[in-house]
Amino acid sequence: MQTLILTHATLAAMDPSGPWLLSDAAIVLKADRILWSGPMADLPPEHREAESRPLDGRLVTPALIDAHTHIVHAGHRAGEFEARLEGASYEEIARAGGGILSTVRATRAASEDDLVAQALPRVDALLAEGVGTLEVKSGYGLDHDTELRMLRAARRIGEERPVTVRTSFLGAHAVPPEFKGHPDAYLDEVCLPALRAAHSEGLVDAVDGFCEGIAFTPGQIARLFDEARALGLPVKLHAEQLSHLGGAQLAARHGALSADHLEYATDDDAKAMAASGTVATLLPGAFYTLKERQAPPVAAFRDQGVPMVVATDCNPGSSPLSSLLLAMNMACTLFGLTVQESWLGATAHAARALGLSDRGSIAPGQRADLALWDAESPAELVYRLGQRPLHARIHGGQWCRS
Amino acid sequence: MQTLILTHATLAAMDPSGPWLLSDAAIVLKADRILWSGPMADLPPEHREAESRPLDGRLVTPALIDAHTHIVHAGHRAGEFEARLEGASYEEIARAGGGILSTVRATRAASEDDLVAQALPRVDALLAEGVGTLEVKSGYGLDHDTELRMLRAARRIGEERPVTVRTSFLGAHAVPPEFKGHPDAYLDEVCLPALRAAHSEGLVDAVDGFCEGIAFTPGQIARLFDEARALGLPVKLHAEQLSHLGGAQLAARHGALSADHLEYATDDDAKAMAASGTVATLLPGAFYTLKERQAPPVAAFRDQGVPMVVATDCNPGSSPLSSLLLAMNMACTLFGLTVQESWLGATAHAARALGLSDRGSIAPGQRADLALWDAESPAELVYRLGQRPLHARIHGGQWCRS
Ligand SMILES: [Zn+2]
Ligand SMILES: [Zn+2]
Repeated sequence: MQTLILTHATLAAMDPSGPWLLSDAAIVLKADRILWSGPMADLPPEHREAESRPLDGRLVTPALIDAHTHIVHAGHRAGEFEARLEGASYEEIARAGGGILSTVRATRAASEDDLVAQALPRVDALLAEGVGTLEVKSGYGLDHDTELRMLRAARRIGEERPVTVRTSFLGAHAVPPEFKGHPDAYLDEVCLPALRAAHSEGLVDAVDGFCEGIAFTPGQIARLFDEARALGLPVKLHAEQLSHLGGAQLAARHGALSADHLEYATDDDAKAMAASGTVATLLPGAFYTLKERQAPPVAAFRDQGVPMVVATDCNPGSSPLSSLLLAMNMACTLFGLTVQESWLGATAHAARALGLSDRGSIAPGQRADLALWDAESPAELVYRLGQRPLHARIHGGQWCRS
Repeated sequence: MQTLILTHATLAAMDPSGPWLLSDAAIVLKADRILWSGPMADLPPEHREAESRPLDGRLVTPALIDAHTHIVHAGHRAGEFEARLEGASYEEIARAGGGILSTVRATRAASEDDLVAQALPRVDALLAEGVGTLEVKSGYGLDHDTELRMLRAARRIGEERPVTVRTSFLGAHAVPPEFKGHPDAYLDEVCLPALRAAHSEGLVDAVDGFCEGIAFTPGQIARLFDEARALGLPVKLHAEQLSHLGGAQLAARHGALSADHLEYATDDDAKAMAASGTVATLLPGAFYTLKERQAPPVAAFRDQGVPMVVATDCNPGSSPLSSLLLAMNMACTLFGLTVQESWLGATAHAARALGLSDRGSIAPGQRADLALWDAESPAELVYRLGQRPLHARIHGGQWCRS
C-alpha cells in the first residue's frame, strides 16, 4: 500500500497530548491508517520521498462523529411543528394522532428500502459537513420486525455511503399502543426477544433506552441493561431530559458508555459518571426545538472531568436537525461550551461515546478519517451558521467527494 | 420568446388572493415573467401546446428574498466568538481591538475583488437555499472610498451570480475612530458626502441607519433621512434593537420601507408603522447569537397588520448566518411566528421591505423567480434544520444550478 503525505496543513488534531493548533503540519497516511503527524520540519526521513499533496494551509481535523441520531425513520412531523406554532397543545397533537406514535406508524409501514431512501438525504447533509462516523438508533418500530428492519437499514447506510455506522438497539424508546399501560409485558414479550434476535443477526453495537416518566422506569431500564450485559453489549441511556429520575446514576452503575440529554442531571450524577467513565452527550437541538429552559450542568461536568459529547439527536419530533456544526454552535451559544469543548464533543469524546478507540483524533495508529476545510481555525467552523466550508473528506484513507 | 409550462406542481404562491397550497398546479412562464398560474384543469387553451416540464408534484414557491444583510465585509470574528465563550466581556474584546471596528479595519484594507471573493461563499450558501434577491448594506467602511467600494462589490455580486442585489447605503452604521465623540461632524464631513457620491454613481437603492445609544440619535438619523429624501431615495432603519429610542416611529414618520430588529418596539410603534406602511424586519439570528431575552412584539405587529419580514442579518459580529431557512426556523421557534408568517416574511413581505412589487409571489406579471423543492410543504422546509432540499431555482426565467 502506498504512503501519502498531506503537507502544509493547519492541524487541529484533537489529541490532548499535542497542541490545539499546529501550522505547517504534515500527516502521513498509509492504507486506512495515520502513520505519523507533526510539524513538517520534523517529518521522518523515510517519508520524504513519498507522494505528497500540499494543502495550502488548509485546516485539517479528524472527520466528525455524530454520536446520537435517530436518523432512520419514515415520514416527518412538519405538520405538528406548524400546529404547535398555531397554538395546538401537545395533548391536542397526540389526540390528533401526532407525536412519536405517528412516526411509529409510518416506520412500521415502510420497507427497508424506503427507510434507507428517506434517511439518505439527512445522512448526505451530515457528510457534506465532514461527518465520517454516525450512530443510528432503532426505536420507532417497537415491534420485533420493525426494530430489526430499522437496524438493517442503518447497516445499509454504511454500505451505500462512505461512512461508518454504529447501531444502538432502542426498543425501550416508548411503550407501543398495543401494550399501553403494560411496559413490563412489552419488555418481556417484544423488546428483549427483539434485542436477542437483532444481536444474533449482528445488528447491535450497543443497547440504549429512554428513562423518563413518559417512557420507562429505572427498574425497567435495569432489566434491559442486565440483558445487554448477558449478551456482552455496551449500554447507554436517554436520561434526565425532562425530569430527574436517576437515570444518569443508573447508567453509571452499569458502566454505560454515555448518558444523553442530562438537562436535569445534578452534581452527584456528574460525580458518578466521572467515576464510571460514562461520558455526557449533550443534545442542544432538542433543547432548542422544545424551547427548554433548563440547560445541562456543564460546569459540573467540567469540574468532575466528565467528557462532554455534542450530537444532533437527528429525529423527526424534537430535533429535525442534520447539521452537526449547527449542534456545535448551539452547544456553545445555548449551553456555554467553549469552542474546544464543542470540537472534542464531535470528535475525540464522541468516539468514546461509541466505544471506539481508533478514531476521533489525528495520531499514529488512528484511522485515516479526516476532514479538510476552507477555514482558518476550528472556531471559524463553529461560529459560522449555515455554511458548509468542507473542502474534502478522507474516509479510511479514501478521498470522498463530500 | 418561448413559453414554458411547469406542470404537476404543488404551488405555494404566497399570494393572499389565492389558496395557501394548491396541488396539481401549472405555472406558465414567458421570458422573465410569469404569464399564468393555477389549477392544471384551468390551464387556458392557448398554452396547451407549449413546451411543458412536469414537476412530479414538487413544491414550488417564489424564490426567497433576504431583505437585510451585511454580507459584503472582510475578515471574520471567530476569535471574538471564542473569547466570549471563554468569559471575555464585550469591553475586554473592544480593548483588544475586536468588535465592529475590527471589521472596519479589515474592510478598509480589502480591495473590491477581495470583498467580492470573501462574500461569494456566503452568497452561494444563500443561493443553495433558493434565494433569488439579496439586500446588501455598506457600513463597514465609514470613510468615503470604502463605503463606495463596498457598494460596488455588492453590485458585482449581482453580475457574478444569478441573483438580484439591492443595495442600502449604511454610512450611519457606527462612528469611526477618527470621529470618536463627533458623530455630527462624521455625518457632515463623511457620511452625507459619501451618500451623494454613491448615489450619483448609481450605487444606492435605499438609505439605512443605526439608531441606538452606541450609534446615532434620532435627530442625527432625521438629518440623514432628509438628505435621502432630497436625493429621492427610500429609507429604512435599524431601530429598537437594544433599547427604545424612538427609531421605529421616526422611520414611520419618514415613510420608511422597513424598521429592522425591533426587539424593544412598543404597541404604539406598531400602530405608527401600520399607518405609514412600514414593514417590520425581524432578525432572529442576531437575537440568538447575542443571547437576547426580549423578543420583538410579534402580537402587536399581527394585531396592527404590520407585515413581518424575516432576514439573516448576515454579518461577522452578531449574526454570522448565511441560511435564510434557519432564520425562518428561528423566527418560528424563538419569536413565535407561524409557518405562514415566516414564509411571507422571506417572500412577499420581504419584497415590500425592498420596495419591489415585481416579485415575492407567484402571479401573472411577476418575475419568473421560482424555487423548486424536494419537499411536500412549506412547513417541512422551515421545520428541517441543516438540510438544503432545493431541487432547482429559476431566476428571471432562467434555470440555475442552485
Ligand atoms: Zn435520542
Ligand atoms: Zn443590520
